[in-house]
Amino acid sequence: MLYQDRNHQWVYSFEEGNASMKALLGGKGANVAEMTDIGLPVPPGFTITTEACTAYQDYSRQFPEGMWTQVQTALKVVEKQTGKLFGSAENPLLVSVRSGAAVSMPGMMDTVLNLGLNDQTVEGLAALTGNPRFAYDAYRRFITMFANVVMDVKSEKFDRVLSRYKAQTTSGADTDLSVEQLQEIVATYKTVIFSERHGESFPQDPFAQLRMAISAVFESWNTERAVSYRRVHRISDDIGTAVNVQSMVFGNMGWDCGTGVAFTRNPSTGESTLYGEFLLNAQGEDVVAGIRTPKPIAELAADLPTAFTQFQQITKQLESHYQDMQDIEFTIEKGKLYLLQTRTGKRTGAAAVRIAVEMVEEGMIDRKTALMRVNGDQIDQLLHPMIDPSAEIDLLTQGLPASPGAATGRICFTPAEAEKYSEDYRVILVRHETSPDDFNGMLVAQAVLTARGGMTSHAAVVARGMGKPCVVGAEALEIDEEEGFMHVNGVEMRRGDWLTVDGSTGRIIRGKVPTVQPELDDNFQTLMGWADETRRLQVRANADNGHDATVARNYGAEGIGLCRTEHMFFEKERLAIMREMILASTRSEREEALDRLLPIQKNDFKAIFRAMDGLPVTIRLLDPPLHEFLPDAAALHVELVELKLKLQKVKTYKKIDATLKQIYEKEQLMAQVERLHESNPMLGHRGCRLGMVYPEVTMMQARAIVAAACEVQVEGIKVMPEIMIPLVSMATELQAQRAVVKQIADSVIGEYGLQLDYQIGTMIELPRAAITADEIAEHADFFSFGTNDLTQTTFGLSRDDSARFLSHYITHKVMPNDPFRVLDQGGVGKIVQMGVERGRQTKEKLKVGICGEHGGEPSSIDFCHRIGMNYVSCSPFRVPIARLAAAQSALREEK
Amino acid sequence: MLYQDRNHQWVYSFEEGNASMKALLGGKGANVAEMTDIGLPVPPGFTITTEACTAYQDYSRQFPEGMWTQVQTALKVVEKQTGKLFGSAENPLLVSVRSGAAVSMPGMMDTVLNLGLNDQTVEGLAALTGNPRFAYDAYRRFITMFANVVMDVKSEKFDRVLSRYKAQTTSGADTDLSVEQLQEIVATYKTVIFSERHGESFPQDPFAQLRMAISAVFESWNTERAVSYRRVHRISDDIGTAVNVQSMVFGNMGWDCGTGVAFTRNPSTGESTLYGEFLLNAQGEDVVAGIRTPKPIAELAADLPTAFTQFQQITKQLESHYQDMQDIEFTIEKGKLYLLQTRTGKRTGAAAVRIAVEMVEEGMIDRKTALMRVNGDQIDQLLHPMIDPSAEIDLLTQGLPASPGAATGRICFTPAEAEKYSEDYRVILVRHETSPDDFNGMLVAQAVLTARGGMTSHAAVVARGMGKPCVVGAEALEIDEEEGFMHVNGVEMRRGDWLTVDGSTGRIIRGKVPTVQPELDDNFQTLMGWADETRRLQVRANADNGHDATVARNYGAEGIGLCRTEHMFFEKERLAIMREMILASTRSEREEALDRLLPIQKNDFKAIFRAMDGLPVTIRLLDPPLHEFLPDAAALHVELVELKLKLQKVKTYKKIDATLKQIYEKEQLMAQVERLHESNPMLGHRGCRLGMVYPEVTMMQARAIVAAACEVQVEGIKVMPEIMIPLVSMATELQAQRAVVKQIADSVIGEYGLQLDYQIGTMIELPRAAITADEIAEHADFFSFGTNDLTQTTFGLSRDDSARFLSHYITHKVMPNDPFRVLDQGGVGKIVQMGVERGRQTKEKLKVGICGEHGGEPSSIDFCHRIGMNYVSCSPFRVPIARLAAAQSALREEK
Repeated sequence: MLYQDRNHQWVYSFEEGNASMKALLGGKGANVAEMTDIGLPVPPGFTITTEACTAYQDYSRQFPEGMWTQVQTALKVVEKQTGKLFGSAENPLLVSVRSGAAVSMPGMMDTVLNLGLNDQTVEGLAALTGNPRFAYDAYRRFITMFANVVMDVKSEKFDRVLSRYKAQTTSGADTDLSVEQLQEIVATYKTVIFSERHGESFPQDPFAQLRMAISAVFESWNTERAVSYRRVHRISDDIGTAVNVQSMVFGNMGWDCGTGVAFTRNPSTGESTLYGEFLLNAQGEDVVAGIRTPKPIAELAADLPTAFTQFQQITKQLESHYQDMQDIEFTIEKGKLYLLQTRTGKRTGAAAVRIAVEMVEEGMIDRKTALMRVNGDQIDQLLHPMIDPSAEIDLLTQGLPASPGAATGRICFTPAEAEKYSEDYRVILVRHETSPDDFNGMLVAQAVLTARGGMTSHAAVVARGMGKPCVVGAEALEIDEEEGFMHVNGVEMRRGDWLTVDGSTGRIIRGKVPTVQPELDDNFQTLMGWADETRRLQVRANADNGHDATVARNYGAEGIGLCRTEHMFFEKERLAIMREMILASTRSEREEALDRLLPIQKNDFKAIFRAMDGLPVTIRLLDPPLHEFLPDAAALHVELVELKLKLQKVKTYKKIDATLKQIYEKEQLMAQVERLHESNPMLGHRGCRLGMVYPEVTMMQARAIVAAACEVQVEGIKVMPEIMIPLVSMATELQAQRAVVKQIADSVIGEYGLQLDYQIGTMIELPRAAITADEIAEHADFFSFGTNDLTQTTFGLSRDDSARFLSHYITHKVMPNDPFRVLDQGGVGKIVQMGVERGRQTKEKLKVGICGEHGGEPSSIDFCHRIGMNYVSCSPFRVPIARLAAAQSALREEK
Repeated sequence: MLYQDRNHQWVYSFEEGNASMKALLGGKGANVAEMTDIGLPVPPGFTITTEACTAYQDYSRQFPEGMWTQVQTALKVVEKQTGKLFGSAENPLLVSVRSGAAVSMPGMMDTVLNLGLNDQTVEGLAALTGNPRFAYDAYRRFITMFANVVMDVKSEKFDRVLSRYKAQTTSGADTDLSVEQLQEIVATYKTVIFSERHGESFPQDPFAQLRMAISAVFESWNTERAVSYRRVHRISDDIGTAVNVQSMVFGNMGWDCGTGVAFTRNPSTGESTLYGEFLLNAQGEDVVAGIRTPKPIAELAADLPTAFTQFQQITKQLESHYQDMQDIEFTIEKGKLYLLQTRTGKRTGAAAVRIAVEMVEEGMIDRKTALMRVNGDQIDQLLHPMIDPSAEIDLLTQGLPASPGAATGRICFTPAEAEKYSEDYRVILVRHETSPDDFNGMLVAQAVLTARGGMTSHAAVVARGMGKPCVVGAEALEIDEEEGFMHVNGVEMRRGDWLTVDGSTGRIIRGKVPTVQPELDDNFQTLMGWADETRRLQVRANADNGHDATVARNYGAEGIGLCRTEHMFFEKERLAIMREMILASTRSEREEALDRLLPIQKNDFKAIFRAMDGLPVTIRLLDPPLHEFLPDAAALHVELVELKLKLQKVKTYKKIDATLKQIYEKEQLMAQVERLHESNPMLGHRGCRLGMVYPEVTMMQARAIVAAACEVQVEGIKVMPEIMIPLVSMATELQAQRAVVKQIADSVIGEYGLQLDYQIGTMIELPRAAITADEIAEHADFFSFGTNDLTQTTFGLSRDDSARFLSHYITHKVMPNDPFRVLDQGGVGKIVQMGVERGRQTKEKLKVGICGEHGGEPSSIDFCHRIGMNYVSCSPFRVPIARLAAAQSALREEK
């Protein structure tokens, strides 16, 4: 057992570590070590490894053997480096204790600052700095934080005390509190703790403080919100967090002090200028928590010019060292700059693309690296709707544009409300400011709006990470959370009212507003070009008409992977003919209706073929059960009851006759609806089963497709039709339907007197089809995996019905993801893979693609790449995501 | 190409062949050759091989090269053996031409007798036999048959002519027709042919007749009814039929002649006595067609004693030669016995069992052979219902008991009617007599009843083959097929009236009659004992209560493989509590209802455990979606409308109040029903998904099972409960539910202060479960394959909805069988096999069984044996079938 090995190294000084030791030292620890390595001004300290955290979890929540001794030794080194002593009343060393996992989890883990302060050391600090106000302010902050994080006392208890004292000052700001007031506050805080902890005192021994703080960091790995964050971001529970113990520097020792957060490039737009905020005379937490609204980083040049110049140089050094945009925390203590942390900065989609492309242009990274730097969610953000520029809007106010995109929803004022309302409505979460407790509320909201905080506040950072529109610091908002309303410049908006948030501009708009897709800029086109050069998978789109096909092509689609012919029938006029077809009692009646559908379908296909000149178009034959085209039984039932009631009222024979006729017709229709009713339509008479029983339907569709192809070919367009037979479970079905299609196709081509290549293939969307793909492949020119249906049958899970328990499953970690969004590689994926392998046993070169929703989801695309598919097909708006994901898969494979 | 090889041997004389050449010479050909071999009196002849038939089908329906020359050569040999000449007017050789495939297809293939007769040879035959009446009778029979089979002229055309002439005789029988009348008939027949064939004459050249007849046999392989028979009996289309050409002998040359059919043992009871029928002065077809009612074989001793004695000896010789009961056709020509054919006799289930057991006792065969001699359908017949002896019956008449078992249904008079009615009702097919055209009608009928024919008539033979009750020769029936009624001893029964047929006794009973299961005799018990010693698979039963469990145990079940707990909830009183549980709005309300269900379930389980003392009992937790326990939405809708109409009529406030309250309650219920409504309940919130969301349901059931087990253990009963979690798709589900069950089980066992072994396992009934069986097995003590649901999800096929297109599929050979009846080994089976293999990767000794309907179907049981399952579980009445099938699988494996 590792935890019993007292000689094992549990603690590393910052000098001992480097960036490659992220798994052991956590992200923060490795980065601080790396910064130390390259000679940057970092306050000395050490890191307790992630192994120690894991050992702690395994070892009945006790420190592993030897760890505490190593901590004490490391502390001695820090004492030497700083010339201070931990627990000394004369020259006290204060430290911060921070968590730092290998994967960044902002706001999820707890931090304690100013540790080492007690009734003695605070006096020492006061004497040493000649600033008792600063010392007692630090002490009261420390007590608050320590009590909250380590001793589980709610911070509200302290806030209430603080507010009372602040109210006594002239400005109402904490900087105006007097030393005496701060001393009184500290004394009151200690009694609050004593009372809340039922007789346990705030610990005066700094070593006890340190032990307790380290334990608290370890414990915080398993708080509900940490677990929830890991669930959402798919981070393993087993990796643990490191603990960083670092000597404190103070940004709140006076007006020659300050603290801030900066990005080496603009995380919202990607522009290559230093971007960030700072506060003078403040500790770092003040910036992040958004308690005071900070100043833009550029203004630091005026306030503290020397520090600013040094900072600028260091940021450049850091970016070129890490070859990526950095998110840097810094503190200035009495004019001297310290770097507390640097990490890869989170960024919007637009910023990600621009930074990646510009860094290539600057020669900092190569194209492959650039391609790996942008992820699908970021591309998705780029394709997010923006407010229609021509729309008339009712502007309520303006805030800071913290995360781009526009969204409309109903107002909710608490995360709980948001979670509840979101079951039925799109919601906007409106808060004073957000904290990690708001995480789940933000998750379900369409957008987040806060009254306070800056561009790096919790709300802004988390919303950008989620790719959700977010506006912060909209100070005109006067929120009454309890009563469920807010006033904005004299307008009252209540809980449930519609609101639109424009995260790209910061506008807050009353009601619903139409949105449009944004233009995609040159950087985007450049990156996509690189992706296209890199990827092996082809990317097609799912589109059912000429317009969608054109959109798809503009987004870079290399063909249509799925055209659902039934969508063409749902338009009102066509639906009437479709119903005639279904209600026909003889084959000739049915054929008569089909004859009228034929030219309509043909024209639809011609539009698609024209849009896809030179590219393949896969058209799926009629798929849904026929009753989907008939009216709803319950609605018919109500109409019938109404007609019968009417019959009792009408008086003239003529009207009685007319009503009786209506009743008769409705009853006839009702009888048909009931005859076609299915208990489980998903598993019913649909797909190729329709064409098997009614071959005339297959014939009409084959004729419409091939005739359309012939007619546009005459126009000089290159047509590549691929006719797809859906829901095949047995080779015999495909064999029979293929024969029907082929016979019609060849005869139509003959009628037009042309040469035309076409292919006939099938959807693999049932487990049996995948299992017997070797047999099916004998009759198929191509396979297209319909992973929506395949997920339904493999799991025995109806997409329409599963919402209720699926969310329960995901919340309780029974399932990692919604399998309809992210392909279930462990189950459905195995069946897909089997289908591909068996199909290619029969036909080595068989063309294979996917056309379910998963075709636009990066991890699923990666799977398709790995198992050797030829293409993915997704909705037009996800085509760019798929192009990038496919390139990334190819690059991953290269490694 | 074989068909171009003129040196290939297409024709074998009877002397050249033997029994082992069945594939090449067909069943009849091989048998006649074998009989010739062992020195029996067989009329000389030769066989054209099945290869020739296949070559004919491949060779644009032409004789393969060299075949016709070989036929002519073989004919010369027969001429030598018989001393007659084919086509000679002086001493004409007449031959029969019969089809004979490798697999017996009674009545499906066509036969031509007396071939070689023409206007000249008929005179020669008359002169030679001194019996012109016989000669012309043979000629008119030949013309009828030849025209019908070879020239496709309907036999009704000739029957009408014959009837007219028969009406002129005194007796009305064909034996009374004069030579002149027969000559006139022949002349008229020839004009009928000339007219029906539009100027083509009946061929006078005997060689032309032979060529045409051979072609016709080849062609008859592809008639609709032959194809249909092969489909039902799962016979390949590719094996072809042989053609047997044999010199004619005549049973109709006078009253010292006769013909008959006999079985070496009674095919209905299995009794070891010669069983059969004969007609004097008749040809074989007269017996089979049931045109005259034949005499029992024993009476032949009086009529033709010498021939009878010889025949008795020969039948003994044949049975011991073939070591099985034989079905023998014979003819006596002028006192001389000829054997025309012998084959393994078809038999009822009871006969199969008795013959197999008695042959072992007689030392003729060993036990293994005996076990292979009986099939599942025959055992099934044994378990067929018989008429309740205590029932009062309204006996209409009595016929011959041709195939055992009793059945009730609505009367249909034509096969078409039967096919149509059988979609909605159980039907009884009532006919004058049946022909191969009735095959499909017989297939859908519950039982068959004919007014004419004997125990070996078409109806009797085919019904026995199908295992359907059949009564023949019920002469009191006066049927008016066209008007759709019959008179039976003064009672009029119309189409659609209920009728009961008792095939075991020959009784025809008016209306519906209750039936009971028969006692199973000693032979059955003996055979089952041998099966139990032989098989490796265990056989369990599916049973949901103590009574069924007892029945199952009496049939030899070795445990319960599936107890469906939800069946316990459908009883009225329990359903009310179940509804309360479902409609509960809080967990505590739900638990309160569950508490009331607990003792009810516990008592049910105790009854089952007592019945299964010492044997394992697998209990499945609640499986169906909850809305199955709620009223139907449509019905509720109607009730609501009625209540609202009522509201308009009631006058007093009190009544208005009461009605409003009712409306409110119904609306509440309706809301719940709608809330729980699912589009695809089969894929919905059911199985373990219920227990995952409502663990209190799992808890209650676990408590009821384990408490019941504890309480009966105290009674001294050995309990082996196996708790089964249904519809698992992911290991995490089983892990979670297992934990819930285990916690409750261990705590209940603790409460009772006992020791109790129990197991927790799962159904594998979703493709994903089979695919990830290695993961699932980690949490399972056993697997039970639910192949009903697995078939649904693997095929994407709802059992409830598939009837319409499944029958289309089977008819059109898209599917060989209903996959819900016979396990689809090529698809679903592969998934099952994968599940077994992967499960045992994790746990080598994992107990695996099957509990779908397939557990009682022999070919599916064989599959379960081959993939190494431990047990099958089926309905109680199929347990003996499963025991036998499992033994046969073990024997097949030995080979």
